[in-house]
Amino acid sequence: MTHNKIRAYAADKAKGSLQPFEYDAGPLGAEQVEIAIEHCGVCHSDVSMIDNEWGNAAYPLVPGHEIVGKVVALGPQAKGLKVGQRVGVGWFTGSCMHCHACIGGDQHHCGERVETIVGHHGGFAERVRAHWAWAFPLPDALDAASAGPLFCGGITVFSPILLNGIKPLDRVGVVGIGGLGHLAIKFLRAWGCEVTAFTSSASKHAEAKGLGAHHAVSSTDKAALKAIRRSLDFILVTVNVPMDWNAYVAALKPKGKLHFVGAVLEPLSVPVFSLMAPKTITGSGTGSPTQIAQMLEFCARHKIAPQVEYFPMAKVNDALEHLRAGKARYRVILGN
Amino acid sequence: MTHNKIRAYAADKAKGSLQPFEYDAGPLGAEQVEIAIEHCGVCHSDVSMIDNEWGNAAYPLVPGHEIVGKVVALGPQAKGLKVGQRVGVGWFTGSCMHCHACIGGDQHHCGERVETIVGHHGGFAERVRAHWAWAFPLPDALDAASAGPLFCGGITVFSPILLNGIKPLDRVGVVGIGGLGHLAIKFLRAWGCEVTAFTSSASKHAEAKGLGAHHAVSSTDKAALKAIRRSLDFILVTVNVPMDWNAYVAALKPKGKLHFVGAVLEPLSVPVFSLMAPKTITGSGTGSPTQIAQMLEFCARHKIAPQVEYFPMAKVNDALEHLRAGKARYRVILGN
Repeated sequence: MTHNKIRAYAADKAKGSLQPFEYDAGPLGAEQVEIAIEHCGVCHSDVSMIDNEWGNAAYPLVPGHEIVGKVVALGPQAKGLKVGQRVGVGWFTGSCMHCHACIGGDQHHCGERVETIVGHHGGFAERVRAHWAWAFPLPDALDAASAGPLFCGGITVFSPILLNGIKPLDRVGVVGIGGLGHLAIKFLRAWGCEVTAFTSSASKHAEAKGLGAHHAVSSTDKAALKAIRRSLDFILVTVNVPMDWNAYVAALKPKGKLHFVGAVLEPLSVPVFSLMAPKTITGSGTGSPTQIAQMLEFCARHKIAPQVEYFPMAKVNDALEHLRAGKARYRVILGN
Repeated sequence: MTHNKIRAYAADKAKGSLQPFEYDAGPLGAEQVEIAIEHCGVCHSDVSMIDNEWGNAAYPLVPGHEIVGKVVALGPQAKGLKVGQRVGVGWFTGSCMHCHACIGGDQHHCGERVETIVGHHGGFAERVRAHWAWAFPLPDALDAASAGPLFCGGITVFSPILLNGIKPLDRVGVVGIGGLGHLAIKFLRAWGCEVTAFTSSASKHAEAKGLGAHHAVSSTDKAALKAIRRSLDFILVTVNVPMDWNAYVAALKPKGKLHFVGAVLEPLSVPVFSLMAPKTITGSGTGSPTQIAQMLEFCARHKIAPQVEYFPMAKVNDALEHLRAGKARYRVILGN
């Protein structure tokens, strides 16, 4: 049974604190499902949207796009899901399902895709609506309470492994050990790679190894970066601050790839000559529904879960403050 | 029979004119072949080396690395070639043949590779020496007099087609219609792609179509570039001047690739956000021996030849001046 009125937490202006807020979700769409939210992760993108850092926020704004909950209602054309089933929802809650991108399996490239917290109310709420194709059944083997961050942070770092054809033979690097980076290390270790973690804080070297990294290197130590020149096949950048990217390009072997998933606001400046080795610079946002399903299966097989801290949903402002202060180890989850 | 004394043309200082020059090549190496040069193309890289633009020139410097000629002598361990056989030589004349890169088929990534005109005397000469693996048998179906530019300019734009897995289904762009770009258009047209040529000079639009381009777009026309946003799978940049690269990234479809082969000296400045679509920026130099052999076979099957102008070897300074003045249509060849 659907409930058109949904209670949530919203910011009513840029950088505003979140306050209780109720909105009318209207009738459930024919292809939609309604989900009673159990847990929702807090992502840096929620902070960016609250602060209108990207210029596309609309207020009141209900953040939250790392949702886990149970299906409570199905539209008449919703496929593949049942009432009572546990599902996850991430950055997108819909796509047209008939364009070339959708039909080709790249629903996340659809021109009419719906972003969960852009012009749509998100998961810091009791309930949320999503197109059935964007509500992913959670394997029983995964812990539901900690799984939320897989649906944004997780797929953001898992998709590049598939996009770049990473093999278990590869030597790989992960820059930044936070919400995204800690999952990237777990994924790449389980993928069979030799993993080097790059972190600016020496205090995280042991943590990085605890997460599965074989090596830890200080991300701003020029001599340490020089010592690993031409040694890595793939480097995944999960930070959103400018760094000496040329040193990372130099750390790649010929045919190596530097992949950005952190939304670094400053333009990259890279000498063209350094790409001739050859080397590649690329990036990506989130992943496709198929990639999300593959990630969930991989996590279940390898017992991979986000490392999280919990706050009650009513303490959402405390949770945001904890994240803004850089204290999250490594992802914060709100529980209803 | 070998001739240790080789007559050539050399620059004796940076930006110097070429003058007759004779050097002692020493005994022929066990794995080397000696080639009597019939023709040698003139490449922009020869000019860059004469002018010491990259800081790695040694004088006297004998340019020339688009060589076609006949084998006149074989070292005792030279394999697969016969005296009298017609071969081509490009940017490299040797590699160690036992490192991982060499054994893996990427001899052009060998740490001990020998560049034909860097610390080695090149093809503006009567004869040249090369390791047997870097002297490529010319298929009989190819015109020997015009084939030289395939060995540097040609493989430089053919290799990216293989590296990026370009398919006949793809919509591709070529930026710059010169020595490299005109061959890229011919290759990609024969590869089965829809080809758009980008050129700053409106006078070259008809020429580009004559070479096989389906469309021609002014490379600096912001409105024209905007009109083709998200339409191309692959763009090959053959120019060496800075341009509005963001407009070219924007012209790519999701998953599209911008590939640099022109040695643009100014660093690229690209917003990271623009790579999230996802999009890729990459580059390459020349290709492997296997790729060169594949290119020669493809050229023979599709009757692809460089469009060239001839100068006698003794008029090498006139040929260089013609190239420097931007008048070459599209490659200049010196004949002995």
